[in-house]
Amino acid sequence: MNNNRHMALSGHRIEIDYIVTGDEKQAREKMAHISVEQTIEFPADLVSQQWIKEEIVGRLEQVTPMADGRFAARVSYAAEVAGGELGQLLNLIYGNISLVPGVEVNDVQLPSALLNNFFGPRFGMAGLRSLLGVAERPLLCTALKPMGLGAQELGQMAYRFARGGIDIIKDDHGLADQPFCPFHDRVARASEAVAKANTETGKRCLYAPMVSGPDDSVWERIRFAKSMGAGALVVAPGLAGFDLMARIASSPEIDLPLLAHPSFLGGPLVARPRGISHGLLLGTLMRLAGADCTIFPSFGGRFSFTPDECTEIAYACRRPLGHIKAIFPGPAGGMSVERAAELTDFYGRDVVLLVGGDLHRRSPDLTANALDLLRSVL
Amino acid sequence: MNNNRHMALSGHRIEIDYIVTGDEKQAREKMAHISVEQTIEFPADLVSQQWIKEEIVGRLEQVTPMADGRFAARVSYAAEVAGGELGQLLNLIYGNISLVPGVEVNDVQLPSALLNNFFGPRFGMAGLRSLLGVAERPLLCTALKPMGLGAQELGQMAYRFARGGIDIIKDDHGLADQPFCPFHDRVARASEAVAKANTETGKRCLYAPMVSGPDDSVWERIRFAKSMGAGALVVAPGLAGFDLMARIASSPEIDLPLLAHPSFLGGPLVARPRGISHGLLLGTLMRLAGADCTIFPSFGGRFSFTPDECTEIAYACRRPLGHIKAIFPGPAGGMSVERAAELTDFYGRDVVLLVGGDLHRRSPDLTANALDLLRSVL
Repeated sequence: MNNNRHMALSGHRIEIDYIVTGDEKQAREKMAHISVEQTIEFPADLVSQQWIKEEIVGRLEQVTPMADGRFAARVSYAAEVAGGELGQLLNLIYGNISLVPGVEVNDVQLPSALLNNFFGPRFGMAGLRSLLGVAERPLLCTALKPMGLGAQELGQMAYRFARGGIDIIKDDHGLADQPFCPFHDRVARASEAVAKANTETGKRCLYAPMVSGPDDSVWERIRFAKSMGAGALVVAPGLAGFDLMARIASSPEIDLPLLAHPSFLGGPLVARPRGISHGLLLGTLMRLAGADCTIFPSFGGRFSFTPDECTEIAYACRRPLGHIKAIFPGPAGGMSVERAAELTDFYGRDVVLLVGGDLHRRSPDLTANALDLLRSVL
Repeated sequence: MNNNRHMALSGHRIEIDYIVTGDEKQAREKMAHISVEQTIEFPADLVSQQWIKEEIVGRLEQVTPMADGRFAARVSYAAEVAGGELGQLLNLIYGNISLVPGVEVNDVQLPSALLNNFFGPRFGMAGLRSLLGVAERPLLCTALKPMGLGAQELGQMAYRFARGGIDIIKDDHGLADQPFCPFHDRVARASEAVAKANTETGKRCLYAPMVSGPDDSVWERIRFAKSMGAGALVVAPGLAGFDLMARIASSPEIDLPLLAHPSFLGGPLVARPRGISHGLLLGTLMRLAGADCTIFPSFGGRFSFTPDECTEIAYACRRPLGHIKAIFPGPAGGMSVERAAELTDFYGRDVVLLVGGDLHRRSPDLTANALDLLRSVL
């Protein structure tokens, strides 16, 4: 199988688009450095093998001046450099380059021969809509919080939100296995609460616990969540690893949609200039690694992403990417019921709207507040 | 066991030091935001439970003006928030805050009750020196490269370096399982080459393959490397996950020292202002997650870290950290034989000097070049 995988890559190229600062000469020098740094990491003049120089070292395809004075550069790499593995592909895209200032990794074009090695999201937009039985409107998501509440209280909260028509009720990403709210208690209570609400409403609300944990705990927790009837999972690949998320996504035993959380990954995005584009990191890479929805802090909330940066993520979620399914952008981080219509206009109806605190602020009746949110997107 | 872990945390605080931009009022507002964002992620005015407000939300301990006009702030968090797990501790330290511009997470003080949950590095400085039988001098490391060479060629290269007295011969971090150099072939060839050299020299050079891979491949590869006689492993926790590295470190079955590579993690470090300090990310967190040596691009090479940033990493490697062993800083990224003495002066003798390309540039005789390096540190 390895041989087949390897042979299929032969002759294909991975194209990576960079944006670099400096004048054209500096930009070209930087690109020469990058094309070596991301591959052979070796003095190019000491390489005697012609095929390594020609095929392994990245090939500068073009350098184009941009309106803002920076330069757009495209470098192509032999698909074999990634070897058909996600980890090494991430290494090629943003490995050592993450350590080089003044370079943004902007986008990537991957040949089908390489994409065929990746399972991607199990459900994608269509699959998740089908699971939920929601054909057209934006999907609604909220989070169980604040941290500090017990499993019983969070279960009751989940019940109220599920009664109000929320589609996906996720753990806040800071909920792990703390003494005040142990993982197994919380997942049992919230799963049974959502199941009860679903029986009453006839809907198919999904509860999505945050799965993390040391050693083999993470798999034990995932299997426990599955056995309790959790309908989805939240994973933070910046903490847990992109390969772990991909492995969960591709597991027929688990067979659950995944919400990806950007924890630990924001550094290069809030830097100026940024180190990697929002669309590539939180869109394309999350999608390749199996997320069915990528959660990110939307413009207009508590964080600083711009509308353009958010558009980039949404675009990367849905544009063609070989056989890899389109996924939902999940704008979050201070969204509100009032802004649901505006956000739907902005992102389109294929979106997961994550409204947290505002569903508590409107009134003490969480079910009524959730129904307000639902009405605002019908 | 969970109950014991949880009870032991009660009453202890995690202290995190931040550096924030703006005037004092803005700094205080930003800190109020952070202490909520990293814990309850919920409108603080809507929290009715006094104990959540007092114990779960971070507590601003002090705000101090710095000479450069920024403010140093210390926030303490209940140790229970981390729940005794590495992933959630990383989440607390640099989760959502990674998405907030203008804040640097500078340092952390962890109570022993929390540290006791972490295995840390299996060997540490003393253990690695003992494995190698090298009591005092700097340890010498090089990398098998350039990418594109086959297993046979890299094996021969490893043999020559081992004959020349290199202590640790690692895979370049871009070597995964590519068609031109499959993992198993490479590890078999390099392991046997280093074993042969050790028999001839009487030394104990360690070969350290880069371990990565999808699904369960990574564990299969780790076990294969162990069975072939590999003496250490290279892990990139930014790609593979910090928990995976911690799990390898704590495995009695594997029982090998780990070199941590910073791939994918550089974004917040090269940003200005940076998002997290070099010492915290590449020193303390790598150490907590079980690295015996943390590789980083040193000043004066192909990258941009400053001497101060490198000093920070080295300091974080060796300062007291509960029962967690001190580890080696591994300056790399364009080091040379000529600079070995200077680097030893700078970092001290408890260092792993990683010299790559320069060991090829000096002459075609790799063994002689390695011996030059060895002589320069005796």
